[in-house]
Amino acid sequence: MDIRPIGVFDSGLGGLTAVRVLRRILPEENLVYFGDTARVPYGGRSRETLLKYARQDLRFLRSLDLKAILIACGTVSTTSLDALQAENDLPIVGVVEPTCRRALLVTQKKRVGLIATLASVRSGAYESMLRKLDSSMEVFCQPCPLFVPLVENGRFRRGDVVIETIAREYLEPLLAQEIDTLILGCTHYPLLEEVISDVCGPGVALVSAGEESAFELKRLLTAQNLRGPSDRQGEANFFVSDQAEDFQRIASVFLQEDLQHVAGRVDIEQF
Amino acid sequence: MDIRPIGVFDSGLGGLTAVRVLRRILPEENLVYFGDTARVPYGGRSRETLLKYARQDLRFLRSLDLKAILIACGTVSTTSLDALQAENDLPIVGVVEPTCRRALLVTQKKRVGLIATLASVRSGAYESMLRKLDSSMEVFCQPCPLFVPLVENGRFRRGDVVIETIAREYLEPLLAQEIDTLILGCTHYPLLEEVISDVCGPGVALVSAGEESAFELKRLLTAQNLRGPSDRQGEANFFVSDQAEDFQRIASVFLQEDLQHVAGRVDIEQF
Repeated sequence: MDIRPIGVFDSGLGGLTAVRVLRRILPEENLVYFGDTARVPYGGRSRETLLKYARQDLRFLRSLDLKAILIACGTVSTTSLDALQAENDLPIVGVVEPTCRRALLVTQKKRVGLIATLASVRSGAYESMLRKLDSSMEVFCQPCPLFVPLVENGRFRRGDVVIETIAREYLEPLLAQEIDTLILGCTHYPLLEEVISDVCGPGVALVSAGEESAFELKRLLTAQNLRGPSDRQGEANFFVSDQAEDFQRIASVFLQEDLQHVAGRVDIEQF
Repeated sequence: MDIRPIGVFDSGLGGLTAVRVLRRILPEENLVYFGDTARVPYGGRSRETLLKYARQDLRFLRSLDLKAILIACGTVSTTSLDALQAENDLPIVGVVEPTCRRALLVTQKKRVGLIATLASVRSGAYESMLRKLDSSMEVFCQPCPLFVPLVENGRFRRGDVVIETIAREYLEPLLAQEIDTLILGCTHYPLLEEVISDVCGPGVALVSAGEESAFELKRLLTAQNLRGPSDRQGEANFFVSDQAEDFQRIASVFLQEDLQHVAGRVDIEQF
């Protein structure tokens, strides 16, 4: 048994969708979330910049004595996970491998689509992992650079012509490839599930990266005997690197609950 | 006469619309452009973070021995110009004052609209300047957080339902106030001129912040005898803080010419 908290980080507040899943499946655990809101979005940045940012994010979280870390950022997971795991002596779970394992279970036709940020798609990490798990897998990728700003500006609801038009444009090339499984490779995308389902229809199963990595973390904590005491309700603490003013409103959207917390402010360049 | 170059900076590549105007009205001048592409967008960041970034941007440019600086970033101009001018001994032109002077000349009804990033609108800088210049001026502001990502993803053309829907939503509250003049308070927005004109109709005059600040810089160089030799064609050099890969393609859009230059890479955190 281990009462230390689990750390979760993302470039912004999208990773809170993974926190929501963790609170559901590991209600007894304490969580610490860090969102690098001063430097969001990570999606278009170079590998070199991403690794630098990810190291700083991790150094901040490790200053809090954690037992494990979930990287809820698809971009960091696809570009920097190996380096971070090699440099740190605690369990670090990314989003790529658990998500690909799930996609492999779900697909019938072995035709899988991936939507993600430009950096995640460019990294080729989901493709290589899927092919490593099953070399006969066909993977079709589509970067969706406008999904994050649209979600962050509240444009994620059914009936909104803007998000529906963009979603159709991004998804139609994948549907033309007759995929039967679609990986949502960015933690913002669960909020678009309805819109994406409407475009894809019932023939395409959606696999959410944030959700699968939360399940993977639960398996790992159980296997390594790192779970917290089951007779308590865990707490969550939130930190951001830029203004915390809008945190409560935006975080409530991602967590899909009425959040009463304020977020602490971290000067991330100091780490 | 002064042969040193003029520095221009912006959070990303939008400020190149100001470079385009400078090359037209000051063709003999050498220009150095810096786009902080590693930390774009500035629009949603806190004042404190913005001042820190702006100081670093300026320190980099000053390492190149310039005669004057144009801050083509609306967000920096509205939040940090006074501090930067106080700390530096060369002429620094922002976008706010020249743009407001122009709006004052253009408006008949003294009802002026402003569209800009969230940080620029929050700063209240355009409003205070307009009222300082004419206390009877009525100013109506609208933050347009989706314009920058849409423009950067090529969604700025007439006939695109996405940009037209967003533009209508942003502009209709201003039109309901019967403005006759609209300030485009962000250097990305000149690319949206057609779409914005279509929504606003002929009764609203558009004033572009980038263009007015370029004219102001020309006046200032002339007045202070800092103009370059008129018998030459000036050159432009470009620097960015993150990957320069896509620079040529994106820069060509903003400059509206076929750019043959590559951009140098700057580690801006070192400044």
